[in-house]
Order: sequence, then C-alpha cells, then structure tokens
Amino acid sequence: MRIVVLAGGIGGARFLRGLMSAAPDADITVIGNTGDDIHLFGLKVCPDLDTVMYTLGGGIHEEQGWGRADETFAVKEELAAYGVGPEWFGLGDRDFATHIVRTQMIGAGYPLSAVTEALCARWQPGVRLLPMTDDRVETHVLIDDPDAPDGESRKAVHFQEYWVRLRASVPAHAVVPVGADQAKPAPGVLEAIADADVVLFPPSNPVVSVGTILAVPGVREAIADAGIPVVGLSPIVGDAPVRGMADKVLAAVGVESTAAAVAKHYGSGLLDGWLVDTVDAGAVDEVEAAGIRCRAIPLMMTDLEATAAMAAEALVLAEEVRG
Amino acid sequence: MRIVVLAGGIGGARFLRGLMSAAPDADITVIGNTGDDIHLFGLKVCPDLDTVMYTLGGGIHEEQGWGRADETFAVKEELAAYGVGPEWFGLGDRDFATHIVRTQMIGAGYPLSAVTEALCARWQPGVRLLPMTDDRVETHVLIDDPDAPDGESRKAVHFQEYWVRLRASVPAHAVVPVGADQAKPAPGVLEAIADADVVLFPPSNPVVSVGTILAVPGVREAIADAGIPVVGLSPIVGDAPVRGMADKVLAAVGVESTAAAVAKHYGSGLLDGWLVDTVDAGAVDEVEAAGIRCRAIPLMMTDLEATAAMAAEALVLAEEVRG
Repeated sequence: MRIVVLAGGIGGARFLRGLMSAAPDADITVIGNTGDDIHLFGLKVCPDLDTVMYTLGGGIHEEQGWGRADETFAVKEELAAYGVGPEWFGLGDRDFATHIVRTQMIGAGYPLSAVTEALCARWQPGVRLLPMTDDRVETHVLIDDPDAPDGESRKAVHFQEYWVRLRASVPAHAVVPVGADQAKPAPGVLEAIADADVVLFPPSNPVVSVGTILAVPGVREAIADAGIPVVGLSPIVGDAPVRGMADKVLAAVGVESTAAAVAKHYGSGLLDGWLVDTVDAGAVDEVEAAGIRCRAIPLMMTDLEATAAMAAEALVLAEEVRG
Repeated sequence: MRIVVLAGGIGGARFLRGLMSAAPDADITVIGNTGDDIHLFGLKVCPDLDTVMYTLGGGIHEEQGWGRADETFAVKEELAAYGVGPEWFGLGDRDFATHIVRTQMIGAGYPLSAVTEALCARWQPGVRLLPMTDDRVETHVLIDDPDAPDGESRKAVHFQEYWVRLRASVPAHAVVPVGADQAKPAPGVLEAIADADVVLFPPSNPVVSVGTILAVPGVREAIADAGIPVVGLSPIVGDAPVRGMADKVLAAVGVESTAAAVAKHYGSGLLDGWLVDTVDAGAVDEVEAAGIRCRAIPLMMTDLEATAAMAAEALVLAEEVRG
C-alpha cells in the first residue's frame, strides 16, 4: 500500500511512527511543511523536516519532541557572547551541524529536495521525505504592532517569531504563506499523490502545517482529484488543541477550535474521512452532515501503541470510504 | 609609541603577548595574515586572525596554541556522521560560532576588516587587528601528485591541506599566494604603517605568514619607504624552526633554514635589525655584512617573561637603528 502523509512537525512525526508500526509494509511518502523554515545566523533551518527526520531516524529529543537528543549548546552560548541573536530559537550543537550541511549544499546549488534526501541518507527514516516545495515559502503572521501609538497598526512577523518568541500570546489576525502562490511542488510530490492508495492528514496544525502544504498550487487539486480516500485526524480534542497552539491560528482564519469545524475547514471536496476523539463523539453527526465520513476513537498519542491504533483506524476508515 | 606588527598565527600571537607586556603603553596595530584562510563547510575560517584574537582575548587553548579553550566537538562529530568533511581540520563548537558569525556578516556585505573589528569588540585583544586585505588571497603549495603515474606531475593544494592534513611531510616545490597580486591592503593597513614609529616581524613563518602579508601590493613598499626602524626576530634557531615546519616552505623559495638566510631573504632594503638566538651568535657577522644590524639574545618564547624580554630587545634594537 502506498500512503502519502502531509506532515508538520511534532504531531506529524509522532503520527508517522504509529503509522509505520500499524502498516510496516506500507510505502510511505511524507510531504513536509517548509513554511516554517527560517534563516538563522546565515543558516537555513527547516524545523518541520528535521523533526520528522530526527524522530523517525532515532535522533530526536523524545521529551521535547524537537531537536536532538544528548544536545549541547556551546555554539549558541558563543553566538550570544558575540551579541548575535536571536536567542529565542533553541539551536543545539548537533542540530547546527544539520543546518551547516544543508546550507552548504544549497549554496552549492542543490535544491532542498536533494538536500533532504542527502540528509536522510544518514538518518534512514524509513519513509520518503519530500519538502512540499523547493521554492522559498515563509509563513508570516499578522499581529498587532505593540510599538504603534494608536494600537491600530499591525505588522507581519515570521511564524517562528510568533510561535517560539511570542508563544502565540498575541492575537493572530492573518496567517500568510508568503511565496506559496508562486511555489511549485517539489519533484516527486505530485507523482507520489498520483500513485498513492490513500492520503492521510495527521493531527498536525490545519493552518500552518497541513494548510501551508495545501497552499502550494497543485497539491490540493492533485489530492482532491486523485480519486483515492483522504482521511484526517483531528488535532482538536474537546475544543482545545492536543498540543501546540492551533486554536490561535484557527481563529486567524475564522475557524472555530472544534473537531467538526476543522473537518469542515478542509471540506468534503478534499476530505473523505475524519477521526475525532471519543470526547467529541457528539461532533460525528455534524461532520457526516457535511459529507465527510466520521468516527470517534481515542486520539491521544500517548505512546506508540495508542498512536498505531489511531493510524490503523485511519486506514480502516479509508477502506470504508473506498467502499 | 606606535608599533606595527606583521603576524601569522601562534608565533605571532605569543610574541604579541610579550610585546604588550614589554610596552604596555604602546599603540599596537597588527596586520594579520589571511593567506591561510579557508572555506570549510561553507564557512569562512581565518585561522591566523583568530589565533591572534583568541590569544590576546583570553580565549585560546593555551597548550595547543590555536582554537578555543574548553572546547567540545559535537558539530564536527555530526558533520562526520553526515559524511561531510574534511575531518582533518579541527573545528570545535565554540570556534564554529566565530566562523558562523563571520560568514553571516560577510554574506550581509561586510568586508573582512569590518567583521574582524566586530569580532574583536567581544574579545578586546588590546591591539588593533587588521586583516592584510579584504580581498581573497589563498596560499597554495605545489607538491608532487601522488596519483600521477610517472611521479613527475605536480598539483597545487591549499596551504591548510599541506600544513594540517599532510603535516608538511612532502616536499613543497613552490608557495603561491593566489590572488595576492590583485589584492589591496585592507583599510587602515597603509595608514598604520605610515603612522608607525617601528615595524616588527615576530618569529612568524617568513614565507607563508610574514611573506604573504608582504606580497600584498603596497605593503612591502610602504614599510620600506616609511623611514622607520624595521626589526625582526628569527623563527629559525640552531638551523631548525622553533615551532612549525618553516624549513619546508623556506626550501620551496630557495632559502636555507638558518637565521642568517632568513634575514637576507627579507633583505636590507626592508629589514634594519634582526635578532638571532644565542646559539646562532655565529651568524651575527654574516647578517651585519648584509647591511642588517644584528644581535644574539635568547629567542625561546618559553613564558611571558622570556617573550617580553625578546620584544624589549627588539625595541632596543629599533632605537639603535634609528640612531
């Protein structure tokens, strides 16, 4: 079975572990979000791609969910001693090496997709990991400008500044994947969708992760037109994000933080099946009324077994949809 | 007193410590060799400038003479895990931060002289440290090509490859500061020479350190024409380099590894005074016969006191020359 997964960072990576456990023989292609990529200290950092790569390759900091295990911070300390920031983005020494290799390869002319393949040659994640695009897309968030005297002015900040530095503590008025409209899917993306038996949306952020991938022209259309089951898992459980701050960016796009609202945001033109948590069983009818088949199951990725069960249920729902 | 010092790496840096101790009120400008600069992992590394900066700024690995104290090597280990080399150049985590800051600033358009000034703002070396040039100069060494079937062919390697990877273990047929002929002295270099009361050549490598600085058009002429004492200290003691492998590159330029031969290599048109070690007292007459005033004193930089005494003798000799 060929499965395509649209993945953000931590949630996507953990779901993929469960999926690989539930379907060990599946041929899995991951289309990774690159809208949260950022240039720091002159280096290209791809947080979501790296989280997937490190998680599936056994290098992740398990408790934290991002960054490397057994990490040290000598480089970051020294950069701070030089007065060079930002200090709010936590890059460890081992992680720096990844960004140095990536930046060197990009400087030598390799596209991000080729760089990602080269990095994965070391990590052997067990999936094919593709960036959504080789072009530069940068998710910006429109927030109030605290320096504006009248409190009316707004400014756009990089998603990482909103998410990591500001901890999503200020209202997001809009989320814009800058450059997405001009971006082309990376080599292999459309081909993987065309060849897939099923497409899965993990419980990743529907706006800044899955939504950004879908904003690359051609991706949404390819998935909608593939004639295969498309099944997602709700990142909202009991009207709150399981982790992260998805509610903040859902508000920016006018979507309620409920499992049903996210399903309807994706829409029946794209989504065929939707899994909600058992606490949201009351939402099943609402989702089905919108033309999306829905089941309520436990959706907390507490351990590999629970996550594998979620992935297995997603595949069962896909077969139901296929009919 | 305004002193200009032409410095390579370890020898130059240690001499400068002695000079600052011997002449604490002197205004010292260091013109640093950049011919051994190298791009590694996409980062610009300036070994000689950094050795001076770290040594005078208190960050040097004292026993090793180069690199940072309390260093760790996580980044290097990770780069090796990615299969990215070279592995023969020892960059530690703390050191990497310097190269990351430098590369980022150069990428942003700052010349190396401005970058060096910015880095020194942290290290406060107590001297003004100028790169010899903001232009790219790269010292190459012509060696036998071990892969050539007839043993006749030669190839050029970067100085660091010759020095660090090959440990100068193969004959050097020529030493070429590639790009030097097109290079311009960095801002401040000619002005510092014009304003100086004395110019000193530390016991640095006369070919690949001091020689490379003198190869930047205008520098040798400015020193020779300044009408001020120019005094050097022999890096050769008892027909062998005090440290390093200066004899290997002296042979490449047809100069014997003796204290007298190095003085004559600089020449009386440039050099006014020369200090040799007491074991080379027999060379004094030969050097003076070449028109260069010469004294024999202990020249081993065993500790700060001994080094300060050497520097003091150099200044005494300069005053003798001034007459």
